[in-house]
Amino acid sequence: MQPDPVTVVEVGPRDGLQYESVFFPTEAKIALIDRLSATGLRRIEVTSFVHPKVIPHLKDALEVLHGIHKAPGVIYSALVPNLKGCLRALETPVDELALFVSASQAHNHKNVGMSIEDSLKGFADIARQALAAGRSLRGYVVTAFGCPYEGAIPLERVERIIEAYGELGAREVSLGDTTGMANPRQVGEVFARLGAEHQGLPLAAHFHNSRGLGLANAYAAYQAGCRVFDSSVGGLGGCPTAVGAMGNVATEDLVNMMEEMGAATGVDFDRLLEATELIKQTLGGELASFTCKQGRPAWNAP
Amino acid sequence: MQPDPVTVVEVGPRDGLQYESVFFPTEAKIALIDRLSATGLRRIEVTSFVHPKVIPHLKDALEVLHGIHKAPGVIYSALVPNLKGCLRALETPVDELALFVSASQAHNHKNVGMSIEDSLKGFADIARQALAAGRSLRGYVVTAFGCPYEGAIPLERVERIIEAYGELGAREVSLGDTTGMANPRQVGEVFARLGAEHQGLPLAAHFHNSRGLGLANAYAAYQAGCRVFDSSVGGLGGCPTAVGAMGNVATEDLVNMMEEMGAATGVDFDRLLEATELIKQTLGGELASFTCKQGRPAWNAP
Repeated sequence: MQPDPVTVVEVGPRDGLQYESVFFPTEAKIALIDRLSATGLRRIEVTSFVHPKVIPHLKDALEVLHGIHKAPGVIYSALVPNLKGCLRALETPVDELALFVSASQAHNHKNVGMSIEDSLKGFADIARQALAAGRSLRGYVVTAFGCPYEGAIPLERVERIIEAYGELGAREVSLGDTTGMANPRQVGEVFARLGAEHQGLPLAAHFHNSRGLGLANAYAAYQAGCRVFDSSVGGLGGCPTAVGAMGNVATEDLVNMMEEMGAATGVDFDRLLEATELIKQTLGGELASFTCKQGRPAWNAP
Repeated sequence: MQPDPVTVVEVGPRDGLQYESVFFPTEAKIALIDRLSATGLRRIEVTSFVHPKVIPHLKDALEVLHGIHKAPGVIYSALVPNLKGCLRALETPVDELALFVSASQAHNHKNVGMSIEDSLKGFADIARQALAAGRSLRGYVVTAFGCPYEGAIPLERVERIIEAYGELGAREVSLGDTTGMANPRQVGEVFARLGAEHQGLPLAAHFHNSRGLGLANAYAAYQAGCRVFDSSVGGLGGCPTAVGAMGNVATEDLVNMMEEMGAATGVDFDRLLEATELIKQTLGGELASFTCKQGRPAWNAP
């Protein structure tokens, strides 16, 4: 039986670049996103409207969104932390806004200085504005699989946040293992309990490779029915030689795994590597990705 | 239900060090193995009796085996390619000899210059000598999940080699994904078909992290019943900044995954990190391991 296809959501230009040690020049960001638009990816998160003092690496959100060449059929999204960020984003041709809240009270307080409940309340205005402007909404549940401040996260809390996103009109919710605490057994159990959709809302899996378990967790989520996966081209955000490496699972590594298993991604591996070349030229050094060095397995070697 | 415990077979001093770019001094090898002996590991492959011209990094096999301090309850093994290597190994206090043959004819020819059948025939004398000397035997099936020269490997061929090892008197057979071609779906299917034991002979899983799939494959093998896993402390053999990185899955990353899933390993994570410290001091630079940088998840943070 042919395994189900999957949807890959590229988050490198946002979740990856915000953690790199140097500023990725605006023109390089635009060139990178344009290359990604030619890979077959259908979803790209391109930037964030978090305050430039908090994430200086993405201070050029407006220029990036105005500079890219949107490809037909690709949905471009941006992260927004609050109504102000939302209104700035709505001045651009962005297709989708992504909201975020932690499943850990302690983490949400550290991250945005308020309780989970207050975050969700604040989303009401954003959702109204975004939907009225014809943009779609994606919700992130940060630290959904564990929090370095709180430890284990009750699944009921994750479910409650998913439901809140549903009421806001989101079209998908992404469950994030923000600090790489999840293990594949846990991930399998979480997705088995929640389902590929929770109360009609599709769930995505967002894994960081902090402890090398990103792909194992993605496999466990896939086995449990999840069909949408976030990843970062080149493994951006996780320099392999840096202590504290915490990048997302690399898009090309995820694509290789899924395609090797027979799960179609619609993404051209070689074109992804062209995007990683641009990253290497811009950042210097090696990337955290494995397959950008090794390529795909040679099953039809001469 | 408590998940089954697993046995970790440390192969770093052999499979890892043979691929490093520099010679690991004999005293450092001995110190590393002695540190590994204090971690709770019950199986350590310490060296190889392959000809020093082929693997110069392990030319000190005799000195290493005579220099280490064997801990009670730990089984120390060495790889032997032929009868000559076997006889040299039997002069040492090694507990177990490991034999190897490829599941790919092309790979076996490139590796040892003969057919699979001739390799197996040659093992008869080695097995007799080793067993007569009171040592146990382990068999490796190299390129069991795919070969860069031949592509896909028929599972029947792997089964035939396992059976041959059984007839030789081996106590375990390790299936190796030598060049990192396996994917977790395939691994799950292979172990589901072969079983945790094949005709009474326990099977081990030996994954290389060339494409970042080592832990995903280990998880898939575990799910399919496999309970013995090979790994290399520090991810030896796979420098993260080198093109062509091809190390084994790192022991501490494997131990972290298994322990996080509730599968007991009996291995002390912190003592493993002390072994990685010695490797870092000796080789310089960063290791391919993830958890030696990140540590284990903080579930009980203050």
